[in-house]
Amino acid sequence: METIHNIILNHNQLVMANLTTRLEDYSKWYNELVVKAGLAETSAVRGCMVIKPYGFSIWEKMRDELDKQFKATGHQNAYFPLFIPKSFFEKEAKHVEGFAKEAAVVTHYRLKAKPDGSGLMVDPEAKLEEELIVRPTSETIIWNTYKNWIQSYRDLPLLINQWANVVRWEMRTRLFLRTAEFLWQEGHTAHETKEDAIQEAELMLDIYKNFAENFLAIPVHTGVKSEGERFAGADETYAIEALMQDGKALQAGTSHFLGQNFAKAFDVKYLDRNGRQEYVWATSWGVSTRLMGALVMSHSDDKGLVLPPKLAPIHVVIVPIFRKPEQLEIIKEKVNPIIEGLQAKGLVVKFDEDSKQSPGWKFAEYELKGVPVRLAIGQRDIENNSVEVVRRDTLEKKIYSQDNIVEDIAKLLDDIQQNIFDKALKFREENTRKVETWDEFKDVIENKGGFVLAHWDGTKETEERIQEETRATIRVIPTDAPEEEGKCVFSGKPSMRRVLFAKSY
Amino acid sequence: METIHNIILNHNQLVMANLTTRLEDYSKWYNELVVKAGLAETSAVRGCMVIKPYGFSIWEKMRDELDKQFKATGHQNAYFPLFIPKSFFEKEAKHVEGFAKEAAVVTHYRLKAKPDGSGLMVDPEAKLEEELIVRPTSETIIWNTYKNWIQSYRDLPLLINQWANVVRWEMRTRLFLRTAEFLWQEGHTAHETKEDAIQEAELMLDIYKNFAENFLAIPVHTGVKSEGERFAGADETYAIEALMQDGKALQAGTSHFLGQNFAKAFDVKYLDRNGRQEYVWATSWGVSTRLMGALVMSHSDDKGLVLPPKLAPIHVVIVPIFRKPEQLEIIKEKVNPIIEGLQAKGLVVKFDEDSKQSPGWKFAEYELKGVPVRLAIGQRDIENNSVEVVRRDTLEKKIYSQDNIVEDIAKLLDDIQQNIFDKALKFREENTRKVETWDEFKDVIENKGGFVLAHWDGTKETEERIQEETRATIRVIPTDAPEEEGKCVFSGKPSMRRVLFAKSY
Repeated sequence: METIHNIILNHNQLVMANLTTRLEDYSKWYNELVVKAGLAETSAVRGCMVIKPYGFSIWEKMRDELDKQFKATGHQNAYFPLFIPKSFFEKEAKHVEGFAKEAAVVTHYRLKAKPDGSGLMVDPEAKLEEELIVRPTSETIIWNTYKNWIQSYRDLPLLINQWANVVRWEMRTRLFLRTAEFLWQEGHTAHETKEDAIQEAELMLDIYKNFAENFLAIPVHTGVKSEGERFAGADETYAIEALMQDGKALQAGTSHFLGQNFAKAFDVKYLDRNGRQEYVWATSWGVSTRLMGALVMSHSDDKGLVLPPKLAPIHVVIVPIFRKPEQLEIIKEKVNPIIEGLQAKGLVVKFDEDSKQSPGWKFAEYELKGVPVRLAIGQRDIENNSVEVVRRDTLEKKIYSQDNIVEDIAKLLDDIQQNIFDKALKFREENTRKVETWDEFKDVIENKGGFVLAHWDGTKETEERIQEETRATIRVIPTDAPEEEGKCVFSGKPSMRRVLFAKSY
Repeated sequence: METIHNIILNHNQLVMANLTTRLEDYSKWYNELVVKAGLAETSAVRGCMVIKPYGFSIWEKMRDELDKQFKATGHQNAYFPLFIPKSFFEKEAKHVEGFAKEAAVVTHYRLKAKPDGSGLMVDPEAKLEEELIVRPTSETIIWNTYKNWIQSYRDLPLLINQWANVVRWEMRTRLFLRTAEFLWQEGHTAHETKEDAIQEAELMLDIYKNFAENFLAIPVHTGVKSEGERFAGADETYAIEALMQDGKALQAGTSHFLGQNFAKAFDVKYLDRNGRQEYVWATSWGVSTRLMGALVMSHSDDKGLVLPPKLAPIHVVIVPIFRKPEQLEIIKEKVNPIIEGLQAKGLVVKFDEDSKQSPGWKFAEYELKGVPVRLAIGQRDIENNSVEVVRRDTLEKKIYSQDNIVEDIAKLLDDIQQNIFDKALKFREENTRKVETWDEFKDVIENKGGFVLAHWDGTKETEERIQEETRATIRVIPTDAPEEEGKCVFSGKPSMRRVLFAKSY
């Protein structure tokens, strides 16, 4: 028997044994893990990924939770066209500058057989009068639509979100973190006043922050971007920034105060409460499948994924330890009420009784997949009224009594959610350093990584010079940082506040 | 007061008063209704629609229910690239024939400023080596991926679904019914045997039929398509066919048995239980935002939408009838427990206390929007312990006691769901006619519309001749029809079974 299994499972076993460690090569570890854990893989189309079922089920959980929070704050979903006429892009000068260089362009609408019958060619007679851009973001097509939806203050605020795919022709792509096509949500709102729009942008940032911390278990810094890092067409870009295990920062979500830029570009005015025609104020905000990358990079280890229970597709896996079918039956009888109890708490439980896989293979498999809790139960446990429980985050093994197992597991899952967050927070705190001198700055960025809190003179020039010399950028100008007099770490000029630097994805 | 309201509301009131009737112009009625009820509108991009929030919320309900049923039958969601390399299309001969003529083609990946600074142009240096097709359906890219996912019978069945946008460059488009871009789900499954694949295709057809009848409240005929109407690349296409109020049929969902066509085109073999390499058997199946069109066309009337309660975004609207704020307060006190009771039953209730709109305006507005039940409550109702209840499907008005109103409304909603279905079924039965002669056939198709059950000799030639002469096509060859000897209505040749003809969308 064993031999046959080894042959059949050979492929999978090799795959599992081979996960590169984070220390060996963090980047390689990440790529291997994403593929081997069944999250995503590269496709035949340059830069586009296939999101595999296990990965997609995690994304669905993220989407459903965010969607619930958007709706609870008064937003509605809608759907706008995939294509954007080229001329729309030209209307907002900064916006087009930001996206023209990575635009996938549809130029024709028909294929035809080659004259020699050797295949297909683009039909030159089916050339579009105006080229269409596959949306990299939808401000332009949406604001062109809002023009007809907004007449008076009674139509405001307009609070709309869209779940969609977008395309940005990136040259260097990585699964989830940077792909030519990705999935995201993009909120686009219109308001009567500047204050209303800023409040909305801040509200959505807050929703992103809470989601990142309470669901992804990733602590994030919030703040505004410097001018150079702003969204193309925004007056202010708010962001949440997370720290990955390799000491690099990752921008996990952005919320933009767009001022009246798009209202002016698309001539969207409204009759205000005083009977005057005014331009509308706007925001847009989005998170994407990039969050999947953040999730993997924040918590996972050399054995595989570590998933926070709130986003895990399977919460508990139960592995019966048996040799004979009769033993399995006895185990099942004991286990069924446990499964039902866990399910009654809304938990997803997998009972893996596959006799063709060894328990050891299963343990490794579910560790790779990041299932938060694993129970093993065998003959001896039946006799002792016990269950072996292993939590994925620490890999700690404990023997539990069967008596109160459902409550105990539910509590353990809460502990795991909290512990994953605490661990990430501790890591971030250990890797956030205040520095005062330029030598110190370079040393930390180069040799230690992580966030650096340093004074900056507020100029674009200094920001660029710092980036040239160290590749570190200003991740955010923290909104909650206290005023503090100091000197710019690079130029020595006076500064009133520290900003957050890091190398980033 | 009234005058001001009339001015402010003028636009909306005009809009509402102007709904073309179905008798005047069914097609115009449909288009106006879709726009005015807030379901969708045309966009600035040829053939692409904007799905507006109210319409999208109905689509979300359809999607969530179907998704639940797919998952309950063992399917998982995944996501595959938007783009398909041109060469992939060439691999399955019939498939490419079906889709090449309406393919949106991406040829370049960058825009640049025109030399004269007058705007943007496609950068000729950013031409793709191989053109990419925006997916019209994903069989090719998915089967190219499955090649790596399927090695042995242990990997089968592979049951995957995708929710996505697709593009088919249609020349004549209509909101929801035929648009260049539409939203849909596409299931793509792989099986060990022909029987398994056929069983899957039939199972999904069954899910579609039940969904159409129990949620959309649209009775559907099921069966297989004739060879000429099959999906490009399928060995058999199963379909659900509905009848619209103008007597035309609408294909509302299809499920395809793909044989080994795509497995052969993409060389997807598996090691079977006997150790042999065999080609995999496949299905694909889909429904789209076209269902929104079917929903509107099946039930709605000259006053607006009629929505089955199971898909209505708002189940109950409550309109208070008052002149003074004190009256509103008294009404609210009475109404709050009713709202809470209805919400406790999972119903969505809107209490519309907007004092700037008249009750009459509100009544018309919610009739347009298809809210299944409307309650009105005023001073006299407070005194009489009564509520005025109007059901949207029949517009019947009744006075209910407040005593048992929550239970009564819940029951009424069930009645409405059933009644809408019954009405559609009665309409279909009245408009399904057995005909025996060619004259009769032409008369019914031309003057009465609806479904015609007639004998057909089974040849493609006869089918084409019938279509040329009457524009009617075979909608399905019913799977549940009894064998019955007869003569082809067109050729007089022997036939063993009646098939279902109609003009269609």
